[in-house]
Amino acid sequence: MPPFRRHVFVCTNVRAPGHPKGCCAEKGAEALRDTIKAAIKARVLEGEVRANAAGCLDACEHGPTVVVYPEAVWYGGVKPEDVPEIVEEHLVRGRRVSRLQIKF
Amino acid sequence: MPPFRRHVFVCTNVRAPGHPKGCCAEKGAEALRDTIKAAIKARVLEGEVRANAAGCLDACEHGPTVVVYPEAVWYGGVKPEDVPEIVEEHLVRGRRVSRLQIKF
Repeated sequence: MPPFRRHVFVCTNVRAPGHPKGCCAEKGAEALRDTIKAAIKARVLEGEVRANAAGCLDACEHGPTVVVYPEAVWYGGVKPEDVPEIVEEHLVRGRRVSRLQIKF
Repeated sequence: MPPFRRHVFVCTNVRAPGHPKGCCAEKGAEALRDTIKAAIKARVLEGEVRANAAGCLDACEHGPTVVVYPEAVWYGGVKPEDVPEIVEEHLVRGRRVSRLQIKF
């Protein structure tokens, strides 16, 4: 099946409660990953676009963190309600959602 | 810290024993991920190159499966002893290791 036209990775890293860096898991990353996967399926993009959980993407302070390849576009603070826009604008049309992009 | 010059994802998906597709986990993917992470650290590539575990990359029959972005180069049947070549050739020099590339 691979390679995919776009490949989305959602950080679902878990740290112990109270860790100074925090973690994407405690900010709802698992639900976010599920929402993105479901939206890709609903939009019949399977095979073209894939979403996967990933280990720590080293952008903990911006979490939940999502990176889309091959463009290497990084999104931060992503909520389930942002997913339709990411799917329609970026994954379907190839237009970055600038309001969600992380400023490194 | 991100974006990275190269980002390596290692499928560490686990399926129940006996599943017809098999899974990367049962083929040594966790150890492979650890070996790649250690090799990146030893080569002082941290910050430039990142390796992460990922969920199922949908290439189960080729596992353990590794994909390198932004090039979207897919490697299959990767063993820990292949890691030095992947690191030196691909991650440092940008030259694909064709003998390990999956033919989709």
